[in-house]
Amino acid sequence: MNNKVPVLEIFGPTIQGEGMVVGRKTMFVRTAGCDYSCSWCDSAFTWDGSAKSDIRQLTDEEVWHELQTLGGDRFDHVTISGGNPALLKSLDKLIDRLHDHQKQVALETQGSRFQEWFYKIDDLTLSPKPPSSGMKTNYEVLDDIVERLQNNGRSQHISIKVVVFDETDFDYAKHIHQRYPSVPFFVQVGNDDLTTTDDDALTRKLLGKYEWLIDLVVATTDMNNVRVLPQVHALVWGNKRGV
Amino acid sequence: MNNKVPVLEIFGPTIQGEGMVVGRKTMFVRTAGCDYSCSWCDSAFTWDGSAKSDIRQLTDEEVWHELQTLGGDRFDHVTISGGNPALLKSLDKLIDRLHDHQKQVALETQGSRFQEWFYKIDDLTLSPKPPSSGMKTNYEVLDDIVERLQNNGRSQHISIKVVVFDETDFDYAKHIHQRYPSVPFFVQVGNDDLTTTDDDALTRKLLGKYEWLIDLVVATTDMNNVRVLPQVHALVWGNKRGV
Ligand code: SF4
Ligand code: SF4
Repeated sequence: MNNKVPVLEIFGPTIQGEGMVVGRKTMFVRTAGCDYSCSWCDSAFTWDGSAKSDIRQLTDEEVWHELQTLGGDRFDHVTISGGNPALLKSLDKLIDRLHDHQKQVALETQGSRFQEWFYKIDDLTLSPKPPSSGMKTNYEVLDDIVERLQNNGRSQHISIKVVVFDETDFDYAKHIHQRYPSVPFFVQVGNDDLTTTDDDALTRKLLGKYEWLIDLVVATTDMNNVRVLPQVHALVWGNKRGV
Repeated sequence: MNNKVPVLEIFGPTIQGEGMVVGRKTMFVRTAGCDYSCSWCDSAFTWDGSAKSDIRQLTDEEVWHELQTLGGDRFDHVTISGGNPALLKSLDKLIDRLHDHQKQVALETQGSRFQEWFYKIDDLTLSPKPPSSGMKTNYEVLDDIVERLQNNGRSQHISIKVVVFDETDFDYAKHIHQRYPSVPFFVQVGNDDLTTTDDDALTRKLLGKYEWLIDLVVATTDMNNVRVLPQVHALVWGNKRGV
């Protein structure tokens, strides 16, 4: 069995910009590869071939060593992001190693594949993709994942997050929330301007869309037990990578 | 016993802009009165006499009625804010009434007074004030509050939040986190410009300070299990009240 992980970047410490542990001081490990190809993917370089030559096949020990070199004793939390890290059975060993060193582990996946190591993730975000992505949710798989996690006592460690670009996406978010009402639910504003370097203009635009999304949620009876968040890293650092 | 609550404003639904349930769709009930007088208090009208004539003495039933009139079936969460709501023994009945109607309750207090009803709050934020406030923390009281909550199985329902304006405040935040290491800990950027109506300038300033605070946390070994947050409502709505 291949016990290496295809790694695209390792960086931090910084903060988590999204979702259930927004603001959390963390390191990032970004894995390569995705089974989706969302129209607005903000990390398309993980799967579109453009950063192919940057991919390194690393053992859990090598990843841990690099995290330590970068973060020293200034971190106790690691976020594994992608691409879709749930494609990688081999993450099991890295997660164990991080836990051995008293580091908490967060991970986000769209929920298209299950892995046994989901049960070990401290902050697991399932982020099914709305219609604007161009992708189709496989509800059989997603139902199964949520059920397994809940049946294994992981309710305190999971959340669902839907990125919303338009009203059709919002309807999708409503549907997802109704389907899994007991899972902590987050909606987030999508960033559809991934290339601008005018950070002030981007901030204004994202805050305007955030207000739009708040207004929608506020007006909607079926969206009460909901948290509405911006991507705080995009507000602070715009489209810069590796911060 | 007086079973009325001195209420200054009731508004919503909107979102919670700060702390452990940032982004949560909620209604607000703001109570009058505070035992502190922080130099940078953003709700000084609750205690400085300027809004004295707006204070209404309401029963829990009247508050509930008003929440329903405003929020209809578009909320399942109510945030009680101040002032310092912990001055009010009479909140007990309101909290029970909200729970009777399946509403969750969040509350923030500086931790200068204990109330038995702390045990019932779903999201309780203790927000001791740093040196820049001009106030002095009574550690005997704060220790006692944290201990009681932890001994009564409330660990999942509490957090500590420190607002940071300068490096001395940051040292204070470090001290608080070390004193209560097992309590989920949040640091937040302070807003020292409470009068400007230039929202864009305020947003830029607050995001700049947010980045400064992130950098401090990132560099500090004793601040690992920490979440750093902006006030998202100030980013979206500036200094406007009642949103
Ligand atoms: S699932 Fe995520 S990484 Fe994959 S294409 Fe969609 S947005 Fe990009
Ligand atoms: S404790 Fe809160 S309400 Fe009271 S003066 Fe300080 S900031 Fe204002």
